[in-house]
Amino acid sequence: MSKENVLYQHGTLALLVPGLLDGTITMKELLEHGDTGIGTGEGLDGELVILNGVPYQVDSTGKVNIVTDKFTLPFANIHFAKFQKLVHVENMDQSDLEKKIMSLTSGNTFFAIRLHGTFAKVNTRAVKKSHKPYSTLAKTAQNQSIFEQENVEGTLLSYYSPDIFDGAAVGGFHHHFLADKHDFGGHNLGFEGATGDIEIQQFDTLEQHLPVKNSDYMDYDFSGQDILGAIHEAES
Amino acid sequence: MSKENVLYQHGTLALLVPGLLDGTITMKELLEHGDTGIGTGEGLDGELVILNGVPYQVDSTGKVNIVTDKFTLPFANIHFAKFQKLVHVENMDQSDLEKKIMSLTSGNTFFAIRLHGTFAKVNTRAVKKSHKPYSTLAKTAQNQSIFEQENVEGTLLSYYSPDIFDGAAVGGFHHHFLADKHDFGGHNLGFEGATGDIEIQQFDTLEQHLPVKNSDYMDYDFSGQDILGAIHEAES
Repeated sequence: MSKENVLYQHGTLALLVPGLLDGTITMKELLEHGDTGIGTGEGLDGELVILNGVPYQVDSTGKVNIVTDKFTLPFANIHFAKFQKLVHVENMDQSDLEKKIMSLTSGNTFFAIRLHGTFAKVNTRAVKKSHKPYSTLAKTAQNQSIFEQENVEGTLLSYYSPDIFDGAAVGGFHHHFLADKHDFGGHNLGFEGATGDIEIQQFDTLEQHLPVKNSDYMDYDFSGQDILGAIHEAES
Repeated sequence: MSKENVLYQHGTLALLVPGLLDGTITMKELLEHGDTGIGTGEGLDGELVILNGVPYQVDSTGKVNIVTDKFTLPFANIHFAKFQKLVHVENMDQSDLEKKIMSLTSGNTFFAIRLHGTFAKVNTRAVKKSHKPYSTLAKTAQNQSIFEQENVEGTLLSYYSPDIFDGAAVGGFHHHFLADKHDFGGHNLGFEGATGDIEIQQFDTLEQHLPVKNSDYMDYDFSGQDILGAIHEAES
């Protein structure tokens, strides 16, 4: 099995829900599993986009930083890029773009999407880092900044997860964005007028890594919580 | 990461639900990922228990066969055994044994349990192989044989999955059994009076492999089905 068939995931979205926000993998460790990815820092410290092995963080002031090897994350997706062109699109909004992709590929396995192009409008958000004791995902994520740019060139990087893995990941699409000028990006809240080549990379394996050395995680009682409901509220 | 930290899973329980029962991995391929495991054959052809690299199949007549490298499976769990003693138990039934284990370890990651010992009573089942066109899991699994032995020496091999992965696996325990005499075994339906050492092996990684080359799987529309309900009915 070649490594390009593997999506590596550290943590789960489920563990973020009650506020298990410790950074449990370093960027150095994460980059051993790929050169392309998304994630968030300890305490929901901004939104990460990893492109060509460079880890960009959009922080809650909107600034784009390159983080160090020692930067830690509670949750991330990463893989070794080997994208193939799926289709060229012109002036397409997010909803139509997702439908277009799903009309061309199976929704029963994990895949990544990369779209480098021009966007008439992009809306993003980035959460402000919180510190221990952490609050829930929903409360922590309220402390976010929202950004918008028009006529922006940049890269949309997205992961798709089958519904059956909803909870471990976001069932459906999870989009992050980084502008070419590195002056804008974050967790994508919506876009309009996307023009460019949609590239796809399909995986046959999810390598799901859990933070078993983190006692807050291992000792946490998840029973009786509406984990999926909280994820959909926070990640939509 | 040492390989002993990895649980390899081929397929998901979710894909069995509508009857996607093609064998999509060979035993030879599966054994590259471990020496200890459980699974079922194409068309739900019996119940597999892999111990020390030897793949035993309990078929629907109750016979225990060693399958060939070419035997194919739609679903399996396998790992490289490196168990550690958790606790000695005397005369314990399944429910108390599961509670005992959960009182001693975290339920937030995957682990395997091996208990070689004596059992006052063990109840098992094995499904009869069906052929294409397959019916649903629930209907196919009705065509099963049920077995019982008393005062049996053997190995209980079990995998535990966190609830958040319910659907991909069975949330909670999934037990298979093989008698030392190789005259009895299968998917465990219950046991009483277990005496022996419970051994545990905790994983930090689930390597989830999906049958992306199987068009029946990739083209299937899972939407609108009660996948979890069907799994719990069939696997309980």
